[in-house]
Amino acid sequence: MRNINEDTITQAVLASMSQCADERLRTIMTSLVQHLHSFAREVKLTEDEWFKAIQFLTDVGHITDDKRQEFILLSDTLGLSMLVTSQNNRKPAACTESTVFGPFFVEDAPEYDCGDDIANGAKGESCFVRGRVVGIDGEPVAGALLDVWQSDEDGFYDVQQKGGGGHEHRARGKLRTGADGSFHFRSILAEAYPIPHDGPVGKMLAATGRHPWRPAHLHFMIQAPGYETLITHVFRNGDQYLDSDVVFGVRSTLIGDWIEHAPGVAPDGSWMERPFYTLDYDFVLNRE
Amino acid sequence: MRNINEDTITQAVLASMSQCADERLRTIMTSLVQHLHSFAREVKLTEDEWFKAIQFLTDVGHITDDKRQEFILLSDTLGLSMLVTSQNNRKPAACTESTVFGPFFVEDAPEYDCGDDIANGAKGESCFVRGRVVGIDGEPVAGALLDVWQSDEDGFYDVQQKGGGGHEHRARGKLRTGADGSFHFRSILAEAYPIPHDGPVGKMLAATGRHPWRPAHLHFMIQAPGYETLITHVFRNGDQYLDSDVVFGVRSTLIGDWIEHAPGVAPDGSWMERPFYTLDYDFVLNRE
Repeated sequence: MRNINEDTITQAVLASMSQCADERLRTIMTSLVQHLHSFAREVKLTEDEWFKAIQFLTDVGHITDDKRQEFILLSDTLGLSMLVTSQNNRKPAACTESTVFGPFFVEDAPEYDCGDDIANGAKGESCFVRGRVVGIDGEPVAGALLDVWQSDEDGFYDVQQKGGGGHEHRARGKLRTGADGSFHFRSILAEAYPIPHDGPVGKMLAATGRHPWRPAHLHFMIQAPGYETLITHVFRNGDQYLDSDVVFGVRSTLIGDWIEHAPGVAPDGSWMERPFYTLDYDFVLNRE
Repeated sequence: MRNINEDTITQAVLASMSQCADERLRTIMTSLVQHLHSFAREVKLTEDEWFKAIQFLTDVGHITDDKRQEFILLSDTLGLSMLVTSQNNRKPAACTESTVFGPFFVEDAPEYDCGDDIANGAKGESCFVRGRVVGIDGEPVAGALLDVWQSDEDGFYDVQQKGGGGHEHRARGKLRTGADGSFHFRSILAEAYPIPHDGPVGKMLAATGRHPWRPAHLHFMIQAPGYETLITHVFRNGDQYLDSDVVFGVRSTLIGDWIEHAPGVAPDGSWMERPFYTLDYDFVLNRE
């Protein structure tokens, strides 16, 4: 420990953790230190570059608050979130695939009955969503709890709105499936949007020649006793960003068809003065 | 891009940076993404663990301000800082070795003349420091600019003091070597101290079975035209933490002898009522 050099420091750091009582933590820290050091050696990281990295992480920390989670954005845009999601959600091919959780979920979204309009004033074209939640053998999952959330037509979630919009729970809500596993609700059309890119992650994307856009999608979290919780999106077919999602979340099985309808009678029987959309999408849960 | 899975996501992230115009940045990001993903695969990082990591980094960001740099502490305690310092400061064996910069340097420290007391009210036993700055062939380096900084006897740097102590520049200052390369100044005795451990880095150290202590040391940054800038410490011989420095900074060649003297005449001719210390240490700069 008195003569550590660039060749021996990794071993010295690992040795310093020899008294770590938590075996799993020690495994994680050992791998982390090895890869962190290998990275620094491989690119021959300079002191200036190291300091820029410190400043970058400081900026990520300082822009993060209870409304904005820039570390999750960073993880998402580096593909780490999708990797962690994938390796923890291996399931039979018949099941609906998982994708990234994202930073815009809210715990205490309002509860709705099937058929309600969850938009709650969020701006966008009207959209009627309908589907079923079933198990892997096709059995209906009655009483499954659905959390649904999405951005508005300007690409903003309620929590991103200035002035308390986050407390109004727009275009998000909880619903339960009926006895046949079905659900339906009204909301607004999902639109493509750029992730928040006025901060350090946005600078990283620009510097590496990447755009900040996500294809249009609707978030679902579906929970039911005896089944694995499913966290996923349905992506809008035809979106120009399906092949370049900035957070690498697209799965071809998760692409759904939003169908445009001329003004007229909506699925809920109401008369629509303007064009509206419908989406039909079924979910297959894996058994726990 | 529509069917990325855990096996193909790394390549997809690297492909997304194909338009990166900055070749060096692309090299760094490529290695970073590969190692980050390899780490997550190797330990089979779970979603809960990923979220704990996000929370940890968020805490590191939120405790960081203009007085406290928790990201540098994190880099220091994971050995990354010392690795980067080492691989960027390879020099002939005759030269004084470099060590970590640390988070407590201040740009605009006051200028002193040789012989001055830089303690400026910092608490501690008196210490008289003396040495020479020479080049690799033994030539004196006249007019070299020394930045010196250290903690007080309670283990705190001025910038860590509550209530504006940071603006008073205690136990830090700038000095210049004379025509023969010599310097001398009065300050206080260097004492061992724990790095700030009331934050997330302290929790990480505790969880991994590590103590937060650094052996007693005096910081030096020495700059002179025609020479490489030297950033280093002198460590106090006999310190109990020399073999377990929490930031892995010790080099045996950087250990100096602080000699205790009974009350009496100090090197500057003043009468000391209390015991005092002296340190003699010479620095050898590498040519640019």
